[in-house]
Amino acid sequence: MKLGFFTANFTEMPLPTVAKMAAEYGYETLEIPAYEGNGQFEPADMLKPGKAAEIRKMAAGFGLDICALSNHSDSFLIMGPTGVETDFIHKGSPEEKVRHGTERLILTAQAANALEVPVVVGYPGVENWGRFFFFPYGQGWAEYEKQFADRFIPILDKFKEYGVKFAIEIHPNSFVYDTLTAEKALEVVDKHPALGYNLDPANVLYLKLSAELLIDRLADRIYHVHAKDAELVEHNLPLGGVLMQGDMRRIDRSYRFRVPGWGEVNWKKIITELSMVGYTGPLSYEHEDVTMSRMDGVEKVAAYLKPLLIKNPYEGRKDKLFDRT
Amino acid sequence: MKLGFFTANFTEMPLPTVAKMAAEYGYETLEIPAYEGNGQFEPADMLKPGKAAEIRKMAAGFGLDICALSNHSDSFLIMGPTGVETDFIHKGSPEEKVRHGTERLILTAQAANALEVPVVVGYPGVENWGRFFFFPYGQGWAEYEKQFADRFIPILDKFKEYGVKFAIEIHPNSFVYDTLTAEKALEVVDKHPALGYNLDPANVLYLKLSAELLIDRLADRIYHVHAKDAELVEHNLPLGGVLMQGDMRRIDRSYRFRVPGWGEVNWKKIITELSMVGYTGPLSYEHEDVTMSRMDGVEKVAAYLKPLLIKNPYEGRKDKLFDRT
Amino acid sequence: MKLGFFTANFTEMPLPTVAKMAAEYGYETLEIPAYEGNGQFEPADMLKPGKAAEIRKMAAGFGLDICALSNHSDSFLIMGPTGVETDFIHKGSPEEKVRHGTERLILTAQAANALEVPVVVGYPGVENWGRFFFFPYGQGWAEYEKQFADRFIPILDKFKEYGVKFAIEIHPNSFVYDTLTAEKALEVVDKHPALGYNLDPANVLYLKLSAELLIDRLADRIYHVHAKDAELVEHNLPLGGVLMQGDMRRIDRSYRFRVPGWGEVNWKKIITELSMVGYTGPLSYEHEDVTMSRMDGVEKVAAYLKPLLIKNPYEGRKDKLFDRT
Amino acid sequence: MKLGFFTANFTEMPLPTVAKMAAEYGYETLEIPAYEGNGQFEPADMLKPGKAAEIRKMAAGFGLDICALSNHSDSFLIMGPTGVETDFIHKGSPEEKVRHGTERLILTAQAANALEVPVVVGYPGVENWGRFFFFPYGQGWAEYEKQFADRFIPILDKFKEYGVKFAIEIHPNSFVYDTLTAEKALEVVDKHPALGYNLDPANVLYLKLSAELLIDRLADRIYHVHAKDAELVEHNLPLGGVLMQGDMRRIDRSYRFRVPGWGEVNWKKIITELSMVGYTGPLSYEHEDVTMSRMDGVEKVAAYLKPLLIKNPYEGRKDKLFDRT
Amino acid sequence: MKLGFFTANFTEMPLPTVAKMAAEYGYETLEIPAYEGNGQFEPADMLKPGKAAEIRKMAAGFGLDICALSNHSDSFLIMGPTGVETDFIHKGSPEEKVRHGTERLILTAQAANALEVPVVVGYPGVENWGRFFFFPYGQGWAEYEKQFADRFIPILDKFKEYGVKFAIEIHPNSFVYDTLTAEKALEVVDKHPALGYNLDPANVLYLKLSAELLIDRLADRIYHVHAKDAELVEHNLPLGGVLMQGDMRRIDRSYRFRVPGWGEVNWKKIITELSMVGYTGPLSYEHEDVTMSRMDGVEKVAAYLKPLLIKNPYEGRKDKLFDRT
Amino acid sequence: MKLGFFTANFTEMPLPTVAKMAAEYGYETLEIPAYEGNGQFEPADMLKPGKAAEIRKMAAGFGLDICALSNHSDSFLIMGPTGVETDFIHKGSPEEKVRHGTERLILTAQAANALEVPVVVGYPGVENWGRFFFFPYGQGWAEYEKQFADRFIPILDKFKEYGVKFAIEIHPNSFVYDTLTAEKALEVVDKHPALGYNLDPANVLYLKLSAELLIDRLADRIYHVHAKDAELVEHNLPLGGVLMQGDMRRIDRSYRFRVPGWGEVNWKKIITELSMVGYTGPLSYEHEDVTMSRMDGVEKVAAYLKPLLIKNPYEGRKDKLFDRT
Repeated sequence: MKLGFFTANFTEMPLPTVAKMAAEYGYETLEIPAYEGNGQFEPADMLKPGKAAEIRKMAAGFGLDICALSNHSDSFLIMGPTGVETDFIHKGSPEEKVRHGTERLILTAQAANALEVPVVVGYPGVENWGRFFFFPYGQGWAEYEKQFADRFIPILDKFKEYGVKFAIEIHPNSFVYDTLTAEKALEVVDKHPALGYNLDPANVLYLKLSAELLIDRLADRIYHVHAKDAELVEHNLPLGGVLMQGDMRRIDRSYRFRVPGWGEVNWKKIITELSMVGYTGPLSYEHEDVTMSRMDGVEKVAAYLKPLLIKNPYEGRKDKLFDRT
Repeated sequence: MKLGFFTANFTEMPLPTVAKMAAEYGYETLEIPAYEGNGQFEPADMLKPGKAAEIRKMAAGFGLDICALSNHSDSFLIMGPTGVETDFIHKGSPEEKVRHGTERLILTAQAANALEVPVVVGYPGVENWGRFFFFPYGQGWAEYEKQFADRFIPILDKFKEYGVKFAIEIHPNSFVYDTLTAEKALEVVDKHPALGYNLDPANVLYLKLSAELLIDRLADRIYHVHAKDAELVEHNLPLGGVLMQGDMRRIDRSYRFRVPGWGEVNWKKIITELSMVGYTGPLSYEHEDVTMSRMDGVEKVAAYLKPLLIKNPYEGRKDKLFDRT
Repeated sequence: MKLGFFTANFTEMPLPTVAKMAAEYGYETLEIPAYEGNGQFEPADMLKPGKAAEIRKMAAGFGLDICALSNHSDSFLIMGPTGVETDFIHKGSPEEKVRHGTERLILTAQAANALEVPVVVGYPGVENWGRFFFFPYGQGWAEYEKQFADRFIPILDKFKEYGVKFAIEIHPNSFVYDTLTAEKALEVVDKHPALGYNLDPANVLYLKLSAELLIDRLADRIYHVHAKDAELVEHNLPLGGVLMQGDMRRIDRSYRFRVPGWGEVNWKKIITELSMVGYTGPLSYEHEDVTMSRMDGVEKVAAYLKPLLIKNPYEGRKDKLFDRT
Repeated sequence: MKLGFFTANFTEMPLPTVAKMAAEYGYETLEIPAYEGNGQFEPADMLKPGKAAEIRKMAAGFGLDICALSNHSDSFLIMGPTGVETDFIHKGSPEEKVRHGTERLILTAQAANALEVPVVVGYPGVENWGRFFFFPYGQGWAEYEKQFADRFIPILDKFKEYGVKFAIEIHPNSFVYDTLTAEKALEVVDKHPALGYNLDPANVLYLKLSAELLIDRLADRIYHVHAKDAELVEHNLPLGGVLMQGDMRRIDRSYRFRVPGWGEVNWKKIITELSMVGYTGPLSYEHEDVTMSRMDGVEKVAAYLKPLLIKNPYEGRKDKLFDRT
Repeated sequence: MKLGFFTANFTEMPLPTVAKMAAEYGYETLEIPAYEGNGQFEPADMLKPGKAAEIRKMAAGFGLDICALSNHSDSFLIMGPTGVETDFIHKGSPEEKVRHGTERLILTAQAANALEVPVVVGYPGVENWGRFFFFPYGQGWAEYEKQFADRFIPILDKFKEYGVKFAIEIHPNSFVYDTLTAEKALEVVDKHPALGYNLDPANVLYLKLSAELLIDRLADRIYHVHAKDAELVEHNLPLGGVLMQGDMRRIDRSYRFRVPGWGEVNWKKIITELSMVGYTGPLSYEHEDVTMSRMDGVEKVAAYLKPLLIKNPYEGRKDKLFDRT
Repeated sequence: MKLGFFTANFTEMPLPTVAKMAAEYGYETLEIPAYEGNGQFEPADMLKPGKAAEIRKMAAGFGLDICALSNHSDSFLIMGPTGVETDFIHKGSPEEKVRHGTERLILTAQAANALEVPVVVGYPGVENWGRFFFFPYGQGWAEYEKQFADRFIPILDKFKEYGVKFAIEIHPNSFVYDTLTAEKALEVVDKHPALGYNLDPANVLYLKLSAELLIDRLADRIYHVHAKDAELVEHNLPLGGVLMQGDMRRIDRSYRFRVPGWGEVNWKKIITELSMVGYTGPLSYEHEDVTMSRMDGVEKVAAYLKPLLIKNPYEGRKDKLFDRT
């Protein structure tokens, strides 16, 4: 495993500036944003001659590689919501939104191919997440399953063609939000080889499901991991519950995103299971912690997580007492 | 408090048959379904001469009164979803659905007025519940708040005119799903005197919020309480989490509705807080328990809950040691 | 074990009225208040010819015996506080208060002797409970230990003379408030045979100590048990903590007394340990529950506790497989 | 489900006396001991003309049927321990012990056949349970697996021939002690149709595994259930742990058997899962509770468990809102 | 936030020696004892010409500033106990004790003014803490509230005059011991601008209240924070409970003070809430841990706490996806 | 306390190589394997002239001392199992096995004497651990107690003669597996001065007993401590329970050994209690963690544990407020 840095933490800075800072603090690999208008990186540029090589050289100059391009925005349009909710991503009719999301996600894969980056992270979106509940229209979720196959198999075929994997970030308000929906998504695309997941433990913590079991089940379909944590604020839970709305910065929030080590996620157990299923990719630090500055995060996350990374699996003890099988 | 019986538990039987059975098992008051096509009760009938008196006489004949009419179906259309999801309730364009929901809810209030029933239970619905989460369009919830005021203030005014209260059932996949959204709904209609809530503890259990605190906060705006429980199946939680989909009857469900006393709800604490805020209404038994027959429920719920009902608040101990203030 | 009834629950009624009611609900034995001015029973009367026999006959007429006289008030003066705090018990100088407490407690023992009642319940009091903490003057507690011996050995000798046992109620704000102080009190009076305890589980619950272990340790020095429970109101604990002040009726109380079965006490475990150490005395119901009427309590406590009383210890299974020792 | 009574609770009484008592307290079915020298029932007698009919008639006369014969003793010899440990069962060389166990178990099946009793309960035993641990000889367990197949397949074939099922009681110090060993045992006998289990929740509680999951997994291989509970005595656990030795009656025991409702087993959840997998057999009360007399148990168990038995599975609500699939 | 060092940890050493050691281990600011006879610092000296400047220069020479003067001793006399308990602080009649406490506290404020130190830490004391409990004289607490106002408003006025704040250490056996009493104290002095608090999390842990909520509620009235932890020794709790007396060094203590990171306090959550309410003061290490040497503490506390200090609040992510409001 | 290194972690390397590596990572003392055929160290060699001095010199050359010789293998034969289970240790008849174990353990003590090493670690073994359970032959454990005395008193006398202590590793499947059996073992050898224990917290974790209490009780009989941890894998526990068999590397294991800091052991509490009872020996790192390489362990354990070692007990604060006794 490697310690990664999501450069979108500092979109106001140029990519080389962020890369330099990441390297100085001990991060080893970069995740770079690729959604439209992120202000730091435009995937279309990678298709121009020499551009991709230039970026790779810049990263290598700091001793870094690039583990993923991330499209957390455009890709959401592929299954929606396609109403006013997503105008900040791209304005247009539902059809135009779907098309935009599809084209931009494919473009991101092309850029990844050019950069020799193995993974693209993104969301499928979902038109109405409320359908997960059986009332009033739980059966409608099946329609989304069909829709997912219809819209994503062509995209995944393109990914396969480009030699790039698509890692869906498991996330609330999206077609894939827990272990079982992740398994279902694989099933409806016939276990398409290009499809896998980005596990962000902070996104599943509130469900009371086990992120460790999620890892054991999805195993080699985990293509990327976000180093993000979430905190349950015990004294606010009796009032707010785990689906509380409102600004993350509210002092009475019952649930808020944190940097790793400051929330309820047990990182040693996460890292252990990842190691057990053979994961060798990044733990990529994304800052959505509203209680401390990003520079606090940059420093604290590296200090906390890097010593925990398991470098190699167990090789046995070469001992009369232990190796008798 | 009284032990209530929701007659929709047995929609295949005529109302008098259900009333007789409820009375025999010790239930004291009836909640009657009023949504279109429930097969047991049509609110429009109550507006015909003599009809309401006949129903009341039938109930009284079994020693019962009627505590509420419930419209868990049509009312959902008022804020949606207004797409295919709700065609089973009423087919039509979004506008037709909203109109249908609005008219039927008002009709229910008229029937309640005719029957001298104080409370109508229902849902507001919500077009896309996924907006509760801040991504991609959390600010869109504010639009629903405006919509709630626009659509419900006229309805609540009608309720007030008829001398009937509207109790929104706090419920997932709806505009009001926890303590804070219930308080917000009251705020956006300027604490309209006709608006209050139906607490179904099984509907909020999974949120980890405190139903007891919900009672303390909503206090005299609690107009109705459902006697329904929910069970967390511990060995299924690591995989299924609390938002698991699928048939309630799956052996691997992590969360399923139960009759009171068979789930995680602490009914003594619920009853205590209700008593503390002066609630004197029903605990109305609704059967959605997939693990036992309805007759199992009828018998077990009465045996379990009736001895727990607090009859009167504390009157002091009339003692030198305790009443010195 | 027997189900007892503390008649001070209804001091506004005459003793026979309360006794009759207790018997009707299935209670088997009475605990009667004996502190000055309780309005129901005056111990000095028992020393008059025929009076004690009359009371016993009255109780027997309802099928009841008398398990204890309780002096929860005067006895508090023996170690204080002897300032204004206890003027409601008896006005006077500290010396007069100590004398009053001492005399009334001895009088109570005389009455118990006359009534052939085996146990008197009371408090030792303590001048300043704050000394339990090591700052600023933890060593001052040792002075209280000496004071306890000085003041109580003569009293206990009187008790012995009358054939009556003194059961100190383990209680906050008193010289004996937990297992270790109870053991210490026995030690400083050289395990005086007249000294033992009244366990009221509600009084020790908040300490996180184990009432079951308390029973195992104090064993045959447990002379009386109060059937009283206490509830921790989880959503109020983050603010109020376990030493919260204020009216028990506050909706935001974090800790409140309850009738048995409605709080956190595990009565099955309490009854089990009592049975294991050979206790055969009463579980005496005292009502300090502010959330329900006393008649709610009378009914609910009998229904809840009586079926739990263990009638006999295990006698072995007379079986080849189990009785081989 | 039915409430059962294991007549070995009172081996000092004749069978009809126990049957009469069980019936009077509301028990519905009998489990009868069949091991050598139990003092109450000898299986060989059932092979004599008319004897079986006589026993069945006696039970029927009290409104009872017979759900199982139990051989908790002889059957232990089949896999051992075959040393001095089991001389109280049957003295002899290891070979003689194995033969005795085998013959008596087969005899019990013949008696069950004669009595038309569907199930025989027993243990397989195990020579050295310490082999469950990987050191020093964890691989030795595999030898027991082979031994189990070798010794039990012929026995199970006999059971099949007699139309009787063999229910192994899952139990510490035996070849089958948890869910996984139960599944393994089925596997090594090729899922022999005569093999299933007796679940005694008290026997698995200390393992921290889930008895509910055990039920879901073994499902239709659960042939019998013991109504026995176990209590963890919290204040003794820090010293004693869950494998503490010594007399169950020690006041400092950390783990002791109890009657249902007095330990840590959640009977509602147990009954729910049993119902979900279609179990319709007995919950058979076995008394090993050292804290209360057997008559305490007889009374308390019937009062506690009988109202919890689920009579029928859910049949649906026949409702527009719920039955739309 | 800054890492502070309470120099009273080593009163046997001169102040400069302690300051030097603190600086060498990475501490950034000093809290200095100012109670009579502490052996290290005499506040009256600060009023002599040049003395205050000398001390400040000494501290600055080690790169340190001074965050607080602490009077944990004399100030206790202001509300008592004024009997023998406090003779070790100052001998005299109750009136003399109150006067001494008052004068010394004001002197401490004058010294702070001279030193340009913003905060003085102290206790109000309380005559009889046992009054927090409603029996026998809970209403007597109100007298203390009046007394607090009478005795402290003049003192607080002096503090205001000197430009110094008074931080009451929330502490057992004192007028302010939890969140609600802290709020009450502010209320009875009309939110006097000079009054605030020193939070020592170890002092409130045993109450089961939330130190995090305490921070949210008291917010900008938190003037100082002690870095002290407390450990609940689980295996001793069943016997000792949370109010156990006796030497902290007893091996069977159930509760003992510890250095930060070695007890039950969640320092990340404490630091988070402090940061959220804008606290920028010290976490001042006070050693009362009886299980390790002070030098163990000096080293371990700096290593543990310093990397956890949050340097700046969140400034936003400057990102299309996150900063849309 | 010192950080120790068990050189058997790398039996495939020569002792000096391992010692060098241990020293480089900050370990301070060595535990060396002494069982037959360990491939790294043969105790008989130590009896040859100059050999012991050579080894000590080698260790000292790296700044290390030697804290223990460990015989985890031969010593197991002394009480068995003496069947096929232990042929991998030494083939032979039961008598030969017992003799071999006894002689090798004594030889190890001789080697320790020669090396001036104070402690030998080993197991007593046990023929059939299943006897800990009361059925079928719990009384048989008493035979093992007698056997322990018979076989070990002569051995312990030899140890005493050589000035070496014998530390039994508390361990499942052995005569001493928890606190009470450890106390019993001391009792049956009349508290022989040579007998004490090696605490490996990972070996007792699953019992739910308290390792901290074990330390307080065994106190100065703790001669050695293993730095080994164990992890309960929550999502596997419902199926596997705590006695699950099978390869530690199974992804569905419910319990697996880990390096310190990666399991459920609270090392700060362990170290605190050890310090409180005056333990000054090693925490010796043994690697049985199947989830990470041994080099991961070497690095992570030193980084985690070394800063936690308590260097000195508390010496008091030399303060008017704290040292008044």
